[in-house]
Formats: sequence, C-alpha cells, structure tokens
Amino acid sequence: MLDLRFRALADAGRRQMLDRLVDGPATVSQLAAPLRMTLAAVVQHVQVLESSGLVRTRKTGRVRTCSIDADALRATEQWLADRRTTWERRLDRLGTVLDEQPRPTSTTRHDREQGPLT
Amino acid sequence: MLDLRFRALADAGRRQMLDRLVDGPATVSQLAAPLRMTLAAVVQHVQVLESSGLVRTRKTGRVRTCSIDADALRATEQWLADRRTTWERRLDRLGTVLDEQPRPTSTTRHDREQGPLT
Repeated sequence: MLDLRFRALADAGRRQMLDRLVDGPATVSQLAAPLRMTLAAVVQHVQVLESSGLVRTRKTGRVRTCSIDADALRATEQWLADRRTTWERRLDRLGTVLDEQPRPTSTTRHDREQGPLT
Repeated sequence: MLDLRFRALADAGRRQMLDRLVDGPATVSQLAAPLRMTLAAVVQHVQVLESSGLVRTRKTGRVRTCSIDADALRATEQWLADRRTTWERRLDRLGTVLDEQPRPTSTTRHDREQGPLT
C-alpha cells in the first residue's frame, strides 16, 4: 500500500489535487478546473489517488465527488516521522557518547585546523 | 524534487534501505547484505535514492558509503504534515460551525430514519 501511496504522491498534478481536497471534498470537474489538463487525464489521476487510498470517491448520479482519506494521509506521514525520530534519537545517543569522552589533551588534527590561538 | 523523493519512497526495497540508514551510515555492500537482490540492483536503488536527495553517498577508494539526508527526509514529511494540519483545521472550523447551529425542532429526515421513539 505504501508503494501505491508514495507513487500517487510522486506527481505534481496529483499533489495539486490533494492540495485542493484538503480544503474539502470536490467533484472531478472542480478538481480539473484550475489544472492545465484534459478531463480524461484528471480522471486517470483520480483513479491513481483512489487506488492509493489517499482519496475516496463517491458517485451520485453522474457526478463523482472526491475527498481526502485523512487516515491514509496520516499513515503515510507517520512512516516518514518514524524514520526521522529514529534518526534523531541516534544523533542524541551519539551526542551523549561524545559528551562522555574525555577531552583530548594533545594537539589534534581538529585543533590544528582551527589555526593558532594567538 | 518532491516527485523524485516520493518516487524513491515508492519501492519496498528502497524503503528497507532507508530503514537501515536511519540507524547510521552504511556501505553499499552492507545495504545489500540483508536484501534478496543483486548488488547491481542495490546500486541502482542507491542511485535513485541519491538523485532524490534522501540519501547522500561518499566514495573512499572503492567503497561507497551512504547516509540519510535528514533535511530531505524532514521536508518530505513536512509536505504531508502541512496537508494534514490544513485538513484538521478545516474539520475544527466545521465542528465550530455545527456547534453554533440551532438544533432543529421540526421532524427531520434524520429523525425519521432513527424510527419511532416508543
């Protein structure tokens, strides 16, 4: 499912549609209005978004209304947030380890790079 | 750039590599070790990750070391977080509007659907 979600997000046109949909549900024609693409292309993008789960659609008569699936959006964000926090925790641990190291007393390469103190 | 980032994320193998890299830098061979794919395939995936900006690589002699670009990861997460918060703010506004509506006194369709109260 994440494959489909990230693939759906990997297109500027589809991201524009999502940008519209976070403001509230919209029909396919409303989604198409600001975009420089054919209605057929918009319909195809909507299908990609729908199969990714990020967007749900409902048909009433001949009108298809699209809306955001907030849970899917949140789950996709969460995948990235989990990796970021793992990374940050690692940096924190690394910082703690470095803080606990005794400071070098001899001249290190780092000191030399700073130049003489005089 | 977001196109490339989301496309890079749209593959389970590449996400596995990122999962490894959030624990710290790794060589291409270290990335390949737990994966059921050829080294050539891993190299290709690394190239996709690198061109997306999510991963940086550095070559020392014949060894290429990969590491996460935390800023790129964060920016990608932020794109999703911004949409989620817009969506949530909209729901909050909607909730406020509904709270401010006077409660209907006449029999509505909703009441009828609930069936008789007796």
